[in-house]
Amino acid sequence: MPLLLIDPDVAARLDASTAVAAMRDALVAAHAGRLIAPPRASAVLEGGRLVMTAGHLADEWYGFRSYDTFGHADGEQLVVLHDARDGRIRAIAVGEEIGSRRTGALGGAAVDLLARPDAGTVGVLGSGRQAWTQIWAAAAVRPLTAVSVFSRSAARRTAFAARVRAELGVPATAAASAAEAVRDRDLVIVATTSERPVLSAADLAPGTHVNLVGFKQRGRAEYGLDLLARAGVLATDSPAQAGAYEPPLLLAGTAPRDLGAIAAGALPGRGTADEISVFLSVGLAGTEVFLLDRVAALLTSASS
Amino acid sequence: MPLLLIDPDVAARLDASTAVAAMRDALVAAHAGRLIAPPRASAVLEGGRLVMTAGHLADEWYGFRSYDTFGHADGEQLVVLHDARDGRIRAIAVGEEIGSRRTGALGGAAVDLLARPDAGTVGVLGSGRQAWTQIWAAAAVRPLTAVSVFSRSAARRTAFAARVRAELGVPATAAASAAEAVRDRDLVIVATTSERPVLSAADLAPGTHVNLVGFKQRGRAEYGLDLLARAGVLATDSPAQAGAYEPPLLLAGTAPRDLGAIAAGALPGRGTADEISVFLSVGLAGTEVFLLDRVAALLTSASS
Repeated sequence: MPLLLIDPDVAARLDASTAVAAMRDALVAAHAGRLIAPPRASAVLEGGRLVMTAGHLADEWYGFRSYDTFGHADGEQLVVLHDARDGRIRAIAVGEEIGSRRTGALGGAAVDLLARPDAGTVGVLGSGRQAWTQIWAAAAVRPLTAVSVFSRSAARRTAFAARVRAELGVPATAAASAAEAVRDRDLVIVATTSERPVLSAADLAPGTHVNLVGFKQRGRAEYGLDLLARAGVLATDSPAQAGAYEPPLLLAGTAPRDLGAIAAGALPGRGTADEISVFLSVGLAGTEVFLLDRVAALLTSASS
Repeated sequence: MPLLLIDPDVAARLDASTAVAAMRDALVAAHAGRLIAPPRASAVLEGGRLVMTAGHLADEWYGFRSYDTFGHADGEQLVVLHDARDGRIRAIAVGEEIGSRRTGALGGAAVDLLARPDAGTVGVLGSGRQAWTQIWAAAAVRPLTAVSVFSRSAARRTAFAARVRAELGVPATAAASAAEAVRDRDLVIVATTSERPVLSAADLAPGTHVNLVGFKQRGRAEYGLDLLARAGVLATDSPAQAGAYEPPLLLAGTAPRDLGAIAAGALPGRGTADEISVFLSVGLAGTEVFLLDRVAALLTSASS
């Protein structure tokens, strides 16, 4: 009988260090060609689509995430893990924790690979689920000393800061503006639903690392060309997926480096301590199944 | 938490009458345009594909079946049922019982709609899982009096006959040849893996109804043109899927009628008692989810 996981199981058992280590391994596997992640497949229904993103780690497992575009507030996703040796289903996760935590953990891997080793202060723009998993993962790779958060809702940014203090044990405050939240910070996380730039590159200190999680297409992006112009190094978790965006990814000439190549030591990461580094998160396909494989292993070893 | 079903749950709880009634309802819903079943979607992995066939019953549910083409003997399929009102996942079935029983039940619906009301004797060619679910479903719609079965393996056809006697309570014998198995029978079920014709139309009595479950493409079919030439009425569960076969469906000019239209009374079925009727089973998409919805309802009402 397959393991069936729901969101509270994932939230209770998956720690950020495990998640970030898994995503770092996934990036290296993708760079080496071992993690196969084909384009998404979809079926058109009445008023929405069912979408499948698949992944395959040669000789170990294959599987997929399914989700739909009906827009239900409580709609549930599925992540399915097959054993590659016999085709049996080892684990099924229902909900969205696997998906959002893997995105957070990809951001954590980017912080680990690109931010200064002594980075400790963080500015966060956005106060939703994606913003939370980013800071959750960042706290696993750098000893955070202070977090400031801005989002449009004063109540939500105040609650987010309280959650950072309570769950991560890091001093945190709500900021009155985006500029105030990001000023003189070592790390900046941008995880909004905005279709227009929400930060000004002029507000960033030299040496800052920035994770960009929200919209990033021409005409619909939470950042602007000013940020790209200041960036000394630009990376993404999937150059192939980033290159397939339509409308195209908002870029200023330079194509982003493969974060997996940086993780594997095949490409350089940050050059100098004063450089601005930017990570464009696109959600490397197959990583939800990669993370479910690790969570299933945690649960199996815990129960035996 | 969604209901998680494995094969023994389905085998224990789903009776053939319920399954056939569900498939008859599904055929009518598809004919009326209420059951939406888009073309299958697939993702290419290393050495195989992951495939998704989706279905949507307007305002009630949507979902999909997933399977792969790696060819593992014990590989597992998945059927997933979402509630259309809120997007939540109501039930998940792991294994292949839902898939094979819905194919059997579509065959049962065809027998019910096309065979003579007094049909009682059955000849079966093939002794695998598909042959079993066909006879399982046929027994729910006609009072069977005798079954004879032929397949290449003497041990398997003998075991199949014993299973018919034990589980369906119908006298059953293994036949020494296909011709002997189908001679003077009211119903004939062909469910083989053969790529060449396994029966001769000359061996069929007038008025026989035939279900064809195996290969049915030009150059690769378990039946021949002689059967089509004798058929007075030809039907399929999905004219759209049958029309999309490549290589094309083996036909002799006449396109098959929509079994759903016959079920809805929009097209005639059998004309005379002496006519040969033939059902070309292609596996109407979305019907696995349709059947899972009914099984989930059975289990929910049983536990409350």
